[in-house]
Amino acid sequence: MIKTVGYGAQAATSKLERMEFERDDPKPNEVVIDVLFTGVCHSDIHQVKNEWKNTVYPCVPGHEIVGRVSRTGGEVTRFKEGDLVGVGCMIDSCRQCEPCESGEENYCEGPNGWLATYNGPMVPATEADNGENMYGRDNTFGGYSNIVVVPEDFVLAIPDGLDPKAAAPILCAGVTTWSPLNHWGVGKGDSVAIVGFGGLGHMALKLAAAIGAEVTVLTSTPEKIEEAKRMGAHAAFVETDKTSLTPLAGSFDLILSTVPDKHEVGTLLDLLKRDASLVVVGNLDVIDGVDNSKLAFHRQSVAGSLIGSIAETQDVLDFCASNGIAPDVEVIDIKDINDAFTRVENGEARYRYVIDMATLT
Amino acid sequence: MIKTVGYGAQAATSKLERMEFERDDPKPNEVVIDVLFTGVCHSDIHQVKNEWKNTVYPCVPGHEIVGRVSRTGGEVTRFKEGDLVGVGCMIDSCRQCEPCESGEENYCEGPNGWLATYNGPMVPATEADNGENMYGRDNTFGGYSNIVVVPEDFVLAIPDGLDPKAAAPILCAGVTTWSPLNHWGVGKGDSVAIVGFGGLGHMALKLAAAIGAEVTVLTSTPEKIEEAKRMGAHAAFVETDKTSLTPLAGSFDLILSTVPDKHEVGTLLDLLKRDASLVVVGNLDVIDGVDNSKLAFHRQSVAGSLIGSIAETQDVLDFCASNGIAPDVEVIDIKDINDAFTRVENGEARYRYVIDMATLT
Repeated sequence: MIKTVGYGAQAATSKLERMEFERDDPKPNEVVIDVLFTGVCHSDIHQVKNEWKNTVYPCVPGHEIVGRVSRTGGEVTRFKEGDLVGVGCMIDSCRQCEPCESGEENYCEGPNGWLATYNGPMVPATEADNGENMYGRDNTFGGYSNIVVVPEDFVLAIPDGLDPKAAAPILCAGVTTWSPLNHWGVGKGDSVAIVGFGGLGHMALKLAAAIGAEVTVLTSTPEKIEEAKRMGAHAAFVETDKTSLTPLAGSFDLILSTVPDKHEVGTLLDLLKRDASLVVVGNLDVIDGVDNSKLAFHRQSVAGSLIGSIAETQDVLDFCASNGIAPDVEVIDIKDINDAFTRVENGEARYRYVIDMATLT
Repeated sequence: MIKTVGYGAQAATSKLERMEFERDDPKPNEVVIDVLFTGVCHSDIHQVKNEWKNTVYPCVPGHEIVGRVSRTGGEVTRFKEGDLVGVGCMIDSCRQCEPCESGEENYCEGPNGWLATYNGPMVPATEADNGENMYGRDNTFGGYSNIVVVPEDFVLAIPDGLDPKAAAPILCAGVTTWSPLNHWGVGKGDSVAIVGFGGLGHMALKLAAAIGAEVTVLTSTPEKIEEAKRMGAHAAFVETDKTSLTPLAGSFDLILSTVPDKHEVGTLLDLLKRDASLVVVGNLDVIDGVDNSKLAFHRQSVAGSLIGSIAETQDVLDFCASNGIAPDVEVIDIKDINDAFTRVENGEARYRYVIDMATLT
């Protein structure tokens, strides 16, 4: 067993507090990683506070992890001690279903879905299964800790040229926006709108702009207008500013909503071209305002997209390194994590808090 | 001017009553058609009762029209006197926008949209346009009348082998379901669910089955279960029967909702495969239950689709003739039209009422 230290919540109403626990020694296919930096994702907050009604406690969040390999199981071939590596939202999947065999583990249809980096299997076992799931554990502890142990197939290589602390948010915020840009075929000259300009939104802008798309940012925060333009937006507007949005009617090939909470989309549909899609990645709630008097008249779609595959995660890391892209991060001490949660909820992050795990002593 | 007789409503609360009016003589590109049969579409009822808040009165509905050419303008080349022809939902479009140039007039983005067979332009002129629209008329009168005058480009040829009265509903109910089956690429062996089993739904079943898809029907009416199987359904269930639907989770490549009223779709999303779409054609209201905790986990879409193009309308007429497909129709006297409306609203039609226009004397 490996003695581990982390920050976790004991209940939905608890603050995150230091806790000690043990991790299993690595299996032959697993890698032990000393965590250097972990990004703070809005979903960490949703999960800690049980806002998705599925949290297993204690909850040690963290799924934007960068660290160094300290030890490898006997069958590991792709990594060695000292390698700079990353871990995102998944640490295993069923490896047998059609999506897994197609390299889309993030849509794993195995009996327990994929194994999340924290909070355990995406599909918990039921009483009918005697409470047993294929991963043999009901909970997992994430990267708000000094050590993680992960199967090598779910470990990413951090390419040279990426600052380790800035690489961390690419592992969730990056790939969650990269995957739909990729899947919906955004290319050079396409017109893309990014709704919500936080951790995910600012990465979506940087990625889409680097692909060659013309990117418009719609934010709820007037002060972010100029920041978005500085980061490469062709235009940026406050989403509620109807006067500015009216001329944008029918102009976007893709709209990507990164808003992390329930968000009415009726106005956004007016901005889509014929046969275009609004893809929602930020919010896992019911999407209000899906008005078929708008959709049908231009054969539009509203779709969802969930993080990205391991291959896409490696792609986006490599793309960021090749194109000099990195999230805007602010490094924090883990002792300040509860304040950071509050600031994320208040939209004060610019644009991603990353925990320096050296402060966990 | 051409003296015409039809049935129309003077206000949202009026019954349809016999009325006389005049149509313009045919322009050089127009065809005069003596109407034989007109189908009764649920949207006729929505429109007459102003349920879409855009009805222009008097309202003479009817957009599933089969008749014989009685006269042609001097430039008409495709039709001659005596030809059996059809007219669907559109009688003109801007002919200049990108969709029109791509042969998708049903998504016309011209300043006034397409010109509907009744109720005038889809996008009425505003005060800013001095109330003038490109078609020069604020209202049009449809096929609940003895004569229509239509530009030849919007006239369909009724192929040999189609019974004229059964051909009528193909012009809306047929193409409205054919177009999404075509656009979303349904092919042999695909698994398709049809939700709602009325005028549109029963045509969707016949078309999808003839394409070679395995079709499941979900209806609100238990008595329709056996009828759906008789028409070629692989399976049919009452939509609220959760016990039957649970095993269908994740099993459909496409779900086509033909339900003509506001309809919650949350349960339907559970039945889609990964990357599959729910396409709503029956209801032009807000779609409730678009739950991104379902969509995102399998990258699904909810989309709308609006009737079909002129080319698709000809395709589906020809497909029906080639494959021996026809709607199940009940021919009615025009004097019974108000009763027929009530029966359609009560789900009593089996499956499309078609008015014999010879009864309009």
